Amino acid sequence: MMDVVIRNGRVVTPGGVFEGDVGIVEERIAALGEGLRGNAEIDATGCYVLPGAIDPHVHLQMWAGDYRSSDDFASGTIAAACGGTTTVIDFVEPADAEPLLSALAARRAEADGRVAIDYGLHMTIDAWHAARPEELASLPEVVAVGVPSFKIYQAYGRLRLDDVLLHRALRAVALVGALPIVHSENGPLCEELRAEALAHGHIDPCYHALTRPARQEAEAVNRVIDIAALAESPLYIVHVSCADAVARVESARKRGEPVYGETCPQYLTLTADALDGPHGERFICAPPLRSHADQGALWAALAGGALDVLATDHCPFTADEKAGHLDFTTIPGGLPSVEARLSLAYTLGVRAGKLSLERRVEVCCTAPARIFGLARKGHIAPGFDADLVVFDPEAEVLLSADVLHEQVDWTPYEGTSLSGWPRHVFSRGRPIVRDGDYVGQPGWGRFVFRERR
Amino acid sequence: MMDVVIRNGRVVTPGGVFEGDVGIVEERIAALGEGLRGNAEIDATGCYVLPGAIDPHVHLQMWAGDYRSSDDFASGTIAAACGGTTTVIDFVEPADAEPLLSALAARRAEADGRVAIDYGLHMTIDAWHAARPEELASLPEVVAVGVPSFKIYQAYGRLRLDDVLLHRALRAVALVGALPIVHSENGPLCEELRAEALAHGHIDPCYHALTRPARQEAEAVNRVIDIAALAESPLYIVHVSCADAVARVESARKRGEPVYGETCPQYLTLTADALDGPHGERFICAPPLRSHADQGALWAALAGGALDVLATDHCPFTADEKAGHLDFTTIPGGLPSVEARLSLAYTLGVRAGKLSLERRVEVCCTAPARIFGLARKGHIAPGFDADLVVFDPEAEVLLSADVLHEQVDWTPYEGTSLSGWPRHVFSRGRPIVRDGDYVGQPGWGRFVFRERR
Amino acid sequence: MMDVVIRNGRVVTPGGVFEGDVGIVEERIAALGEGLRGNAEIDATGCYVLPGAIDPHVHLQMWAGDYRSSDDFASGTIAAACGGTTTVIDFVEPADAEPLLSALAARRAEADGRVAIDYGLHMTIDAWHAARPEELASLPEVVAVGVPSFKIYQAYGRLRLDDVLLHRALRAVALVGALPIVHSENGPLCEELRAEALAHGHIDPCYHALTRPARQEAEAVNRVIDIAALAESPLYIVHVSCADAVARVESARKRGEPVYGETCPQYLTLTADALDGPHGERFICAPPLRSHADQGALWAALAGGALDVLATDHCPFTADEKAGHLDFTTIPGGLPSVEARLSLAYTLGVRAGKLSLERRVEVCCTAPARIFGLARKGHIAPGFDADLVVFDPEAEVLLSADVLHEQVDWTPYEGTSLSGWPRHVFSRGRPIVRDGDYVGQPGWGRFVFRERR
Amino acid sequence: MMDVVIRNGRVVTPGGVFEGDVGIVEERIAALGEGLRGNAEIDATGCYVLPGAIDPHVHLQMWAGDYRSSDDFASGTIAAACGGTTTVIDFVEPADAEPLLSALAARRAEADGRVAIDYGLHMTIDAWHAARPEELASLPEVVAVGVPSFKIYQAYGRLRLDDVLLHRALRAVALVGALPIVHSENGPLCEELRAEALAHGHIDPCYHALTRPARQEAEAVNRVIDIAALAESPLYIVHVSCADAVARVESARKRGEPVYGETCPQYLTLTADALDGPHGERFICAPPLRSHADQGALWAALAGGALDVLATDHCPFTADEKAGHLDFTTIPGGLPSVEARLSLAYTLGVRAGKLSLERRVEVCCTAPARIFGLARKGHIAPGFDADLVVFDPEAEVLLSADVLHEQVDWTPYEGTSLSGWPRHVFSRGRPIVRDGDYVGQPGWGRFVFRERR
Repeated sequence: MMDVVIRNGRVVTPGGVFEGDVGIVEERIAALGEGLRGNAEIDATGCYVLPGAIDPHVHLQMWAGDYRSSDDFASGTIAAACGGTTTVIDFVEPADAEPLLSALAARRAEADGRVAIDYGLHMTIDAWHAARPEELASLPEVVAVGVPSFKIYQAYGRLRLDDVLLHRALRAVALVGALPIVHSENGPLCEELRAEALAHGHIDPCYHALTRPARQEAEAVNRVIDIAALAESPLYIVHVSCADAVARVESARKRGEPVYGETCPQYLTLTADALDGPHGERFICAPPLRSHADQGALWAALAGGALDVLATDHCPFTADEKAGHLDFTTIPGGLPSVEARLSLAYTLGVRAGKLSLERRVEVCCTAPARIFGLARKGHIAPGFDADLVVFDPEAEVLLSADVLHEQVDWTPYEGTSLSGWPRHVFSRGRPIVRDGDYVGQPGWGRFVFRERR
Repeated sequence: MMDVVIRNGRVVTPGGVFEGDVGIVEERIAALGEGLRGNAEIDATGCYVLPGAIDPHVHLQMWAGDYRSSDDFASGTIAAACGGTTTVIDFVEPADAEPLLSALAARRAEADGRVAIDYGLHMTIDAWHAARPEELASLPEVVAVGVPSFKIYQAYGRLRLDDVLLHRALRAVALVGALPIVHSENGPLCEELRAEALAHGHIDPCYHALTRPARQEAEAVNRVIDIAALAESPLYIVHVSCADAVARVESARKRGEPVYGETCPQYLTLTADALDGPHGERFICAPPLRSHADQGALWAALAGGALDVLATDHCPFTADEKAGHLDFTTIPGGLPSVEARLSLAYTLGVRAGKLSLERRVEVCCTAPARIFGLARKGHIAPGFDADLVVFDPEAEVLLSADVLHEQVDWTPYEGTSLSGWPRHVFSRGRPIVRDGDYVGQPGWGRFVFRERR
Repeated sequence: MMDVVIRNGRVVTPGGVFEGDVGIVEERIAALGEGLRGNAEIDATGCYVLPGAIDPHVHLQMWAGDYRSSDDFASGTIAAACGGTTTVIDFVEPADAEPLLSALAARRAEADGRVAIDYGLHMTIDAWHAARPEELASLPEVVAVGVPSFKIYQAYGRLRLDDVLLHRALRAVALVGALPIVHSENGPLCEELRAEALAHGHIDPCYHALTRPARQEAEAVNRVIDIAALAESPLYIVHVSCADAVARVESARKRGEPVYGETCPQYLTLTADALDGPHGERFICAPPLRSHADQGALWAALAGGALDVLATDHCPFTADEKAGHLDFTTIPGGLPSVEARLSLAYTLGVRAGKLSLERRVEVCCTAPARIFGLARKGHIAPGFDADLVVFDPEAEVLLSADVLHEQVDWTPYEGTSLSGWPRHVFSRGRPIVRDGDYVGQPGWGRFVFRERR
Repeated sequence: MMDVVIRNGRVVTPGGVFEGDVGIVEERIAALGEGLRGNAEIDATGCYVLPGAIDPHVHLQMWAGDYRSSDDFASGTIAAACGGTTTVIDFVEPADAEPLLSALAARRAEADGRVAIDYGLHMTIDAWHAARPEELASLPEVVAVGVPSFKIYQAYGRLRLDDVLLHRALRAVALVGALPIVHSENGPLCEELRAEALAHGHIDPCYHALTRPARQEAEAVNRVIDIAALAESPLYIVHVSCADAVARVESARKRGEPVYGETCPQYLTLTADALDGPHGERFICAPPLRSHADQGALWAALAGGALDVLATDHCPFTADEKAGHLDFTTIPGGLPSVEARLSLAYTLGVRAGKLSLERRVEVCCTAPARIFGLARKGHIAPGFDADLVVFDPEAEVLLSADVLHEQVDWTPYEGTSLSGWPRHVFSRGRPIVRDGDYVGQPGWGRFVFRERR
């Protein structure tokens, strides 16, 4: 007798689809079968049952200059949950001179007790730490407490690693068996182009995209691939946004190099034209939104395997925070995407014939779990955590800030009609979304110890 | 209560690995779980539990001129079973003027009642049939009885389709939603080179490879890809043997064309040098064995996704049948590989770091099931057929004709040491191999109705 | 003292441009210099002095079924001369069973005494001859009389060589040090598509292009490249018309294979839209006109070196001959281009920034001379034939059948404005065009003995 | 009547070869012809007559730390002349805060009156100057005095431009219609690897190559290509040394970007194995010598057009200066190559079937003249400077420091046998090498005003 049985759904994993029941005992999937009996039974007839999605790229209550992303660990994870995401991985960003483990403890203190779903953390290696061998020597301690992935920036002031620090950091990360995840843009060049734009009085949001052209992203992607090869390091490149960068990732993979690529819903569905619209300032994020041709290349790469993961880079700021700036350079960058990802991927990917059912699960659930060492997440099989989504393919949703749980008063997907939305969501066996309503409790989520095999 | 429970194995599917039990009721997988109880329980501790492998490319009791491949439907499927393969797909080869459905019935009559495991059949479209619209008009009837895949040859006399027939056949197959599977070699050119070789007194087996050079295979592969594009047809290319042909497949996929590629263990593990050895004549097969460099390209393509399936093209002839020919052109072509495939892929692929555990299952089990419309095969999930392999990764096997069940007195892998071999094999819930011994009954296998989704 | 001096022109060769004089003694360039004195002096101030252009691909008074191309050796070579072309290479097309040397003699009899400029001939190897070793054995005799290039067709009935004959012919040609020049289309497939089109009542000219799609051309190009590699033969592919075919040529060159490519003005300047126009039937040629995107790829290939030669495939039929057909399949195929080539290349190439001055001379003059063994043509240097063009870059010409000397009552370039046209043309030292008027005599031209080094 | 006639040579230009005479009046080529008469006549029967070669990459009397390259403007240009080079382009390297024009004047003062042949200068833009808009604003003045090419470094301390300065400098150079020529290596990364090597006690010369791996060069090449694209600048990459870097250049050209590439004789003929030899220290240069596979890729690129120029990067240091260092990092880097280039290209290129006669002239003479704006150099035509080489293809030379005129006591080509060597060399009409002996006068050479068209 199970505690809970999800009955008669079409259960999707990368290996295929079966119709049947998923049985839960306590926090784990205990059985897959037919005619399973449980103390509670949920009818999933007509629905897909998916592994809870993993979002390995979110920024909750993150300071960006004077602004803080508007979703905190509570609201952001509730929104994630409502969209079918049951694990997020956020970031630790140590201050200069702050020990990595202290920063990790501080960040955990912000999240623990507040998160609605399980979460992990990537450790950021900024320039201060990368420059100090004794700091890099502490990486094993970080890995030892369940953080085997390290964020590295090729842009953004004190976060940015120059080539030498990049090489040191990549090698240090590789040596401890961990994974570097890299924001690839040529920071100094973007700064230069921004300064020039301002000098010419170019202050509108569209200049955000024009001063971060695709070619500089491709350059940065290519550079980190080359330096990772020299450092004998694997590599995960976040938010690949353009065809030209995809081509560099593809070349590396063709040479047999262990390079992973991620893209995000915003790059698949929006274009730089949004920056010219009535609220263009809201659409500022980095890398910037690109062209239709870039979208096509990204969908093809995601379907064909040149890119591995669909994450969100969720980083919301309110309409007020985005508005009223003297020029585009002070607008806090980032978009909210954490809640709609799975449904966007279904409507615009699966229904549009661009992704198979299995590939959607692969890029949203299984691949991020495997790549980031979430040993019991991302898959539906006995012993795995009972993180599950009952996804109703017929649910019609008209996206707007009102219907979303993200703590932000606008959405870039305003007015988009989706067919397919999570009906129920379970986190470690416990219903946290029922009939589309959040029914969980803050603090249910736990920090997940991750380990790369 | 299950009928049978396989306990405590490491269950491998493309989505990942879990430790637990697989429960069987009657012919199907009824449950995956922990602590399942069954009337019979099999301990799989320390072993992998895999989906029964699919071999979509075998030639049993096939006439090749005056010879018939030495494994009949009984012996060949027993050997397959012992190696962990629980479904094979063989071929119907209608004679000129023979209706396709009659030929199918005749071929089924040879197999039904004799096969040890489930089987399917591909229908061959030879030149006689391809040239007749009324014959191509009968393809829907063939699909309707569970045969949604059609073999097409670019070589071999009456089997060979010229460009026009190729175009017609591909389009006809595509129109009925079926899959063309193509032997890609430039037949007329190979015949010409053979005639030339003989004219120069070049009769030794090595001339078999020299008269079927990699470049002619690449040409044929490229041609059928181009013609399939014109015919708006998907395409499955069997036994891709060389780097140059892989490159052509890769280009097509990069253009987004639905082209699948298969390779075989012999191309991954042997080279044309074998043709110069003491029993060089035995190693004659088409395409011929190639070079070490080609092997590397094939492994990389199989791991990276440029090739989809590892099948065998199993087609054994005895040492006597192979020997004593006046020249290489009359030696019956084909190698036995059906039994060792899964273990070769483990030792030389997984253990050697060339394939992941999951990718091995993908290319040997899941992908062929999905591509060829075996809706209940190739995956471990409730409702799927209980075709299962308990694979002991520590079993040591020294390959020789003696230890194999293939009905042929030699093996191309003579002397190869493998680590890992199937311990138990189940076919639709029934043990057919126990502790390495075949314990099934001829005729247990059934014809499988296939349907491409 | 020279016989003739062309003074003060800007003399263009692939090595650069110099301002000065070209001195002629009898039939040869005797000197390049400054202040040369001659019995006759021509002022070329403000003009370019170019090597007489070579058109290695023309079809004069050629039978195509019941039609004969409307330019005979006299009119066609006069038109060529007026456009700045001083050498053409036409074709010998032996009938079945006709000895190659007899056919050559017959063709020479048609041309000798009538041609206005020098000419060469390619020998065609049709299927009848290619199938007979004794005929292929006569190739050295053909080479010995100055014909070291052989036309091969992958399309067109009795002209078409299948793969085996193609291999034999390529090898035979390579063995005598000659060059195969190949019409690359998949003939049987085009025939099939035409028959289908007719069966559907698709009779309009646009179906000509639709039944000869770019992909079939790419296939044929790829095939002959692969077979040439097996035959260890160099290769010259005529009238490459599309991006996809260019890509295959480029791949071969990147592998270091000796493959040359040619394109023609019609493919650089017209598109398949012309077939839908009021006189669509006139624009039928094979390969057919393609798309704007294909044009871009061809210009880039011509400029960047992936294609070597700009020839014309000049093959005019009158408006009446083109008109009034029941369907597109009986319309004689071919366009007139021989006269405007050099000027089209100047206005649409050099002035448009797509070709340098030097590259225009390379692809129209120097490369065809080098590739086809015209040892004393295509270059301006002492000892070379005094085949020279004084090209006025400021001459404005509005193209129409009226202003052209081609013996055909229409031009595909009707209404095109060109800036730049030949003012004077010399053939072996003799003025044959003066101030734009033909002033030569029929029969001045001679058969040129060609030899490949 | 000419002043000098070179009679009966085989005159080679990119457009072809003719046999005849080259007539000189005063400093220019006055006529090409047959039977020219001159006050002096030189018999060139059996010899090639080539344009005097251009070496756009030499470092004479250049300070490298405490060392100065051992050839001064006199000795270096005499050696160049003896090897058939009649123009060199050297570099101006302004000190920090030194005005560009002052530095140019100073450098000219070193050369004028001493050079045996004509010379030009590239202006170096170091970090100090690149960072100052007012300095970049002086580029037009530099161009105005005949220096339309600017050297930029991605390595070497104060010379190195970071990405922002690189972008500024490239744009500034492009804006004045000049050409940036770039040393592409990732300087900081090489510094890091050197420091690490030393820290491990790795002091031998072979570590020079190991700490400047091919991949870092490829990275730098790719980066500057991307940044040049953003800056809308053409680009000339000096001393491309490896296959990986060639591939990046090729990609750029395939995208239609104006990127030129140069390689040097040392990369075509020597490998990193030399660093392990008895005098390994002598072979230190940057980029370092590479592998045999890299050589193959470079030859193919030079022949096929992916690379444009064969220059030398001539920068000799004596055996004593090279020897006796505590570790490899203080050894002055650079090899002598200026004298043997043309002959190495003949013996190892033309005779070995890797380059045609015309292509050798193109890459050694015509292309550098065209790319670097030497309007009257690099070609044999009336009005061009009478810089000419009578090259005897049968002259046998066994290379050693003794037979060379370079002012350095060793040569990397010690013991290499060459077939083909310049017999006579003319600089602006004046014989400066006669029968292999230098017969010129210091100071004959002049600074050449260059202008890019």
